[in-house]
Amino acid sequence: MKNKISIALCAAALAAFPLRAEETVKEEYPSPPEIVAKAKAEEWVAIAQSDLLVMDLATDAKGKARRVVIQLMPAPFSQGWIGNIRKLAAAHWWDGTAVVRVQDNYVTQWGDPTEKKALPEGLAVVPESEYETSQVCGEMVLTQRGCIIEPAFRSGPSKVDAYSEPTGFSNGWLITKSRQARKLTKVERNSATWRQARLATVWPVHCYGMVGVGRNLSPNTGTGAELYTVIGHAPRHLDRNIALVGRVIEGMEHLSSLPRGTGALGFYESDEERVPILSVRLGNEVADAPTFEYLSTESVSFAAYADARANRRDPFFIKPAGGADICNIPVPVRRKGK
Amino acid sequence: MKNKISIALCAAALAAFPLRAEETVKEEYPSPPEIVAKAKAEEWVAIAQSDLLVMDLATDAKGKARRVVIQLMPAPFSQGWIGNIRKLAAAHWWDGTAVVRVQDNYVTQWGDPTEKKALPEGLAVVPESEYETSQVCGEMVLTQRGCIIEPAFRSGPSKVDAYSEPTGFSNGWLITKSRQARKLTKVERNSATWRQARLATVWPVHCYGMVGVGRNLSPNTGTGAELYTVIGHAPRHLDRNIALVGRVIEGMEHLSSLPRGTGALGFYESDEERVPILSVRLGNEVADAPTFEYLSTESVSFAAYADARANRRDPFFIKPAGGADICNIPVPVRRKGK
Repeated sequence: MKNKISIALCAAALAAFPLRAEETVKEEYPSPPEIVAKAKAEEWVAIAQSDLLVMDLATDAKGKARRVVIQLMPAPFSQGWIGNIRKLAAAHWWDGTAVVRVQDNYVTQWGDPTEKKALPEGLAVVPESEYETSQVCGEMVLTQRGCIIEPAFRSGPSKVDAYSEPTGFSNGWLITKSRQARKLTKVERNSATWRQARLATVWPVHCYGMVGVGRNLSPNTGTGAELYTVIGHAPRHLDRNIALVGRVIEGMEHLSSLPRGTGALGFYESDEERVPILSVRLGNEVADAPTFEYLSTESVSFAAYADARANRRDPFFIKPAGGADICNIPVPVRRKGK
Repeated sequence: MKNKISIALCAAALAAFPLRAEETVKEEYPSPPEIVAKAKAEEWVAIAQSDLLVMDLATDAKGKARRVVIQLMPAPFSQGWIGNIRKLAAAHWWDGTAVVRVQDNYVTQWGDPTEKKALPEGLAVVPESEYETSQVCGEMVLTQRGCIIEPAFRSGPSKVDAYSEPTGFSNGWLITKSRQARKLTKVERNSATWRQARLATVWPVHCYGMVGVGRNLSPNTGTGAELYTVIGHAPRHLDRNIALVGRVIEGMEHLSSLPRGTGALGFYESDEERVPILSVRLGNEVADAPTFEYLSTESVSFAAYADARANRRDPFFIKPAGGADICNIPVPVRRKGK
């Protein structure tokens, strides 16, 4: 039954977006934003307010408010650190901290500039093994908390990129998995759940706008008090070396357009340069927090959008690339009902 | 003879950077910047002053100078547009124009906001075929102006990325080539020069900091008067759809940290928002222009640097990626003699 649905989705996508662009008039092809604009209401998935992290920076030089909204990742990814982040927000720990580092083509980072502020009690110490998640059940990825759908779309003409094979989308997030599956254990082989198992290791990807947890040298994995977001080309060498916990879904420009720091690694060298953080709260604790939704990565429209990103056929383009790397197919997110 | 040299280089690189990191102490591995810092003086290649484009923006809010230095690409790439750019600089055409567009995670673009300023006479109309360059001779890429060395380093665990196969480095630039070589003609097959020919199409790559030529709809290819630079994740779908003419080698932060435009496509909506351009000159016409050099992409140190970028083993990292996409291995450029 599951297979039948998958095939039906593929056929629908292909009918609407034939691969041989030269046979048809270019103007017939909608652009990726046009495809997203035409997606059906039921293809959008609401994001819970409790999964938002709302960060208000001090106003800019012209007195304009600067609000950044981050969506936290769902299980099975990085839940240890995300639990800490929820506690830090509840304790208002970030209020009065600052943006401390902006390194061009790399990251903007925020936290306590003094590095002396006491942390709330009860934060988890998360092991490095949590940078990735393994175990697969049939077409589904089995996690400690259940199963997630395996990626339906695989980018690239050869189904791989320079980092792993394959990359894909799952439950609204970009993920990748290892090329080498581990062997099934005897218990797994004999289990009905695992009969069709193809084991793999999956992990989230360091794309533009993703939010991660700063840390010291291994085995330290960071608490979540020091966070950063990617403001340049995807630093994929950080995948599986640092925890990713979410992505910026609104206000990215307030972090990406800040003056670059002049100290080593782009750290600001004086208090005057640092951008004060007024408050960080979970979305359900902010009265005027907007609501958001993302385009389901399992929807027909998302498949068409991803295909169009990988094969640009709107009028500006003369040679479709025939592929796209995972970070060039960002999941569409918008204010709800827009 | 050439093959022997290649093997010797490989052996040297492998001896210094064994692939099995777990067998050795991590601290033995220098980081990419450390490898670059230790490169020999003769591994650096001087950049001619006449290949620099020096753009002075109006001072910032604090009265600080903002200079951006661009290195123009060498033959065989994009020489039609680059010839136009040399004429535009000689005519002081950009003086009094402005940065007109800053789109987050995409491009910063500059040119004439009125779109009415007359262009100098004699600019070339360059055909779309110039977006790429074909013909290969043996291990060398044959061009209309001679041969360039084929990439020695191929990034990625599977030697491909999502866009093409393979990517690599040549004469200080990042390039890629098509997966499908065209057939040799009879003349080429019978030519001594072409005996070992493996034909391919090569083109430059839209990485962070690369500079390209804005254009209208095809078959328009732009004159070079409207330029942009990439300020986010590599928009590789623009490869072979727009001409690339160079890269920002100093002052990138003056373009990447500008406020994002609020109009469609990130265009600024008022004169007040636009950043005035005071002057754009070729480097040999600027008395105080600094001199630059790049790390030869054919050097032993570059091979070690590229390998280290793809397999981070310096102490911070716990899992080397085993690959890197081409845009994550930028060619090191520095002020000369530093």
